Amino acid sequence: MGSESRKTFLPLDPVTFSNESKVIDFIADYYENVEKYPVQSTVEPDILEDVSNCIIPGLTHWQSPNFFAYFHANASTAGFLGEMLCSGFNVVGFNWISSPAATELESIVLDWMGKMLKLSYFLFSGTGGGVLHGSTCEAATRDKALKELGGWENITKRVVYASDQTHFTFQKTAKLAGIPPSNFRLIETSFSTGFPLSPENLRFAIEDDIKSGLVPLFLCATIGTTPSGAVGPIAELGKVAMEFKRWLHIDAAYAGSGCICPELRHYLDGVELANSISMNPHKWFLTNMDCCCLWIKEPKLLVDSLSNDPEILRNNASKSKAVVDYKDWQIALTRRFRALKLWVVIRRHGLANLMYHIRSDIAMAKRFEALVGEDERFEIVVPRKFALVCFGLKPKVEEEDLNCKLVEAINSSGRAFMSHAVLSGIYVIRCAIGTTLTQQHHVDALWKLIQDKAQSLLM
Amino acid sequence: MGSESRKTFLPLDPVTFSNESKVIDFIADYYENVEKYPVQSTVEPDILEDVSNCIIPGLTHWQSPNFFAYFHANASTAGFLGEMLCSGFNVVGFNWISSPAATELESIVLDWMGKMLKLSYFLFSGTGGGVLHGSTCEAATRDKALKELGGWENITKRVVYASDQTHFTFQKTAKLAGIPPSNFRLIETSFSTGFPLSPENLRFAIEDDIKSGLVPLFLCATIGTTPSGAVGPIAELGKVAMEFKRWLHIDAAYAGSGCICPELRHYLDGVELANSISMNPHKWFLTNMDCCCLWIKEPKLLVDSLSNDPEILRNNASKSKAVVDYKDWQIALTRRFRALKLWVVIRRHGLANLMYHIRSDIAMAKRFEALVGEDERFEIVVPRKFALVCFGLKPKVEEEDLNCKLVEAINSSGRAFMSHAVLSGIYVIRCAIGTTLTQQHHVDALWKLIQDKAQSLLM
Repeated sequence: MGSESRKTFLPLDPVTFSNESKVIDFIADYYENVEKYPVQSTVEPDILEDVSNCIIPGLTHWQSPNFFAYFHANASTAGFLGEMLCSGFNVVGFNWISSPAATELESIVLDWMGKMLKLSYFLFSGTGGGVLHGSTCEAATRDKALKELGGWENITKRVVYASDQTHFTFQKTAKLAGIPPSNFRLIETSFSTGFPLSPENLRFAIEDDIKSGLVPLFLCATIGTTPSGAVGPIAELGKVAMEFKRWLHIDAAYAGSGCICPELRHYLDGVELANSISMNPHKWFLTNMDCCCLWIKEPKLLVDSLSNDPEILRNNASKSKAVVDYKDWQIALTRRFRALKLWVVIRRHGLANLMYHIRSDIAMAKRFEALVGEDERFEIVVPRKFALVCFGLKPKVEEEDLNCKLVEAINSSGRAFMSHAVLSGIYVIRCAIGTTLTQQHHVDALWKLIQDKAQSLLM
Repeated sequence: MGSESRKTFLPLDPVTFSNESKVIDFIADYYENVEKYPVQSTVEPDILEDVSNCIIPGLTHWQSPNFFAYFHANASTAGFLGEMLCSGFNVVGFNWISSPAATELESIVLDWMGKMLKLSYFLFSGTGGGVLHGSTCEAATRDKALKELGGWENITKRVVYASDQTHFTFQKTAKLAGIPPSNFRLIETSFSTGFPLSPENLRFAIEDDIKSGLVPLFLCATIGTTPSGAVGPIAELGKVAMEFKRWLHIDAAYAGSGCICPELRHYLDGVELANSISMNPHKWFLTNMDCCCLWIKEPKLLVDSLSNDPEILRNNASKSKAVVDYKDWQIALTRRFRALKLWVVIRRHGLANLMYHIRSDIAMAKRFEALVGEDERFEIVVPRKFALVCFGLKPKVEEEDLNCKLVEAINSSGRAFMSHAVLSGIYVIRCAIGTTLTQQHHVDALWKLIQDKAQSLLM
């Protein structure tokens, strides 16, 4: 480790800082070659050489145009620029005074994003407000419910609801928040309806629990589930939440970005009945990791749950109550200036380009769906809503795990990377289109690869 | 918003990526001028101009050499390079297969850092292991205790212990983990001993709670508390934890970095009795935010608490149990490749330079302490251990809030930024030395400023 002389140890020297610009060329090289790994790079020796020789060969290339697995984490040079500025300033905006611009810009950008999604009740310019997290958090709901329950004694009676398609982080956070796993209701979804959370089944489950003396606390509805991209009927789920006066959170982590397009916004109809909503620009909004928007209709409830007032952070601005102290909107004190990143992405691209990007991915997914439909050996398993296509070889009695073998054959070719889900016991292949560099010819090549591998398997 | 044409919308274009290198010059400019803000910058128009005109004037300059408040978040060009690579690759290492190099490098770097701190029992090369988080988390302890308690019914009987000097995030996370605030024991510390957690008082508190039918769960000891830099006597606290078989976590967020120097390592004596320890390279180890190392003596306990196995993430590598899946070491699924950053910092600087950096800050703090000691109007309130000096004007009967006024006078001058603490009811001024650019002449100028402002106040 280490080669610099101690006598010239200037770890943050403005004069030599510009030498770091070679990393920009290095990263540009990376994107230039991302389709051809293992790369033969010719960078300068030192750390970048180590990165080329030791790190890159071990990376799964999430930015490759042939990455169709999980949900993508699409990046852009604008997102990268935002990250560089964030890291360059390295300020800690835990309260307003610790960097006013960081707090102000975050409030502005959350309103910009919220306006694109028409989240009127959730904006600072209305009576709501938003915050950037690294990932979704549902802590806000707990203390609210505890107050209604009259204290900590009934903590084990609280119940949370979601569908069996809801992201597993939901269960993790609920468990951490002190809710016993026996009180998680993962309501079964069905093939016939396309796997959304059913308002009827939700109502039955809540009524059952109330009869048993339990206390419903929190419902989570998803716009674009991870396994299949299903969408909960927000308006109807919202009515159930209202009826029982429970907290409704909408997890639009993946598909929320899509709802900036007018033709997709209807999936958010009824959002005004929810208490909170989150989406991740780091998935499908060209924003480098990490960046999760969380809006709350009544931010006071979040602040009441998470605020504290240690002497060491007291200051006149906070005392005035005229400012937002984001430390009270999150668990940790540490805060990166993430707003810069989302601001640069929106500021540089603009709404028209951002919609173009979403529509282009959806058009490619539609085309892929059509290609699958034309091949009688294959079937579309779930109707496509966004840019995720769930498909597979039609089941054959004599060969059970055909689709599992197909995914393994595709992935081990190194030419594409896909992942799978199991829906109502059926193994399906997921084709998630959304990396920034994916173009039509990559999708066509993927389909050709799938057909070839299927051919070998079926022979 | 937005100016790019849709026809040429290439949000991640390798050919034009190199244009982003102007941001490097922009950030170099920022450091060049960080002492002279408000800055008169002459960058190109567009986004960087907005940043100059609208963002920079509203920043509190954490990287200014005249920043002496809170604890610093010291940055380096190496940390910046690491962040650029992390953001450039934008991979998501939630499990081993999703980017093997990200997981492997994280394990290697945690062992490097652990070896510098002589944390033998906590290394992967031993029987422990480490993980990078954004900030400290103590979730690991909960399920362990719950198992011993035989279920969720006794959740409200668990008690956690720390000193009244412990970081307030401790209370926030304990509350979120479902521990009622009435079961937080914040054991009073005293002026006479310099504010560490007292093993005797801790034992009394535990014995009292056991008599009352409560269940002690977790002790948190701090190396370098936020208000005054106090150090819990780890070896003695460890004996109490062992005696009652409770989880001992060591929070070395600030001062842990200092313990790489042999002459400071004794503050960690007894660490082998702890169950977990954390420190933040983003505070005092030249690593840009965010970066928190957490080591666990028995990682299985953390994984048992946080693991899940959703179908969508199943893969052969994880099935083999031969790899680390870091998703099971944290709450969220999203993971940035933070290890690159800490790796570049250690790899480029080396241990000798990193020790030089710590010693240089401590030498400046010693000198500041001596300057304060030479002025009979002032006093050192708490003995200095690291690079934090707690001092103030000697109390005067006729003027109660003299030190509060002094801090306000210093901060409103714009020439330095300091913060305060209240220790046993006494308002003290904190001088935290540690930003990367701070040199002896900045500390001397600070002392001159303090003396001048005190002179005006005392006239």
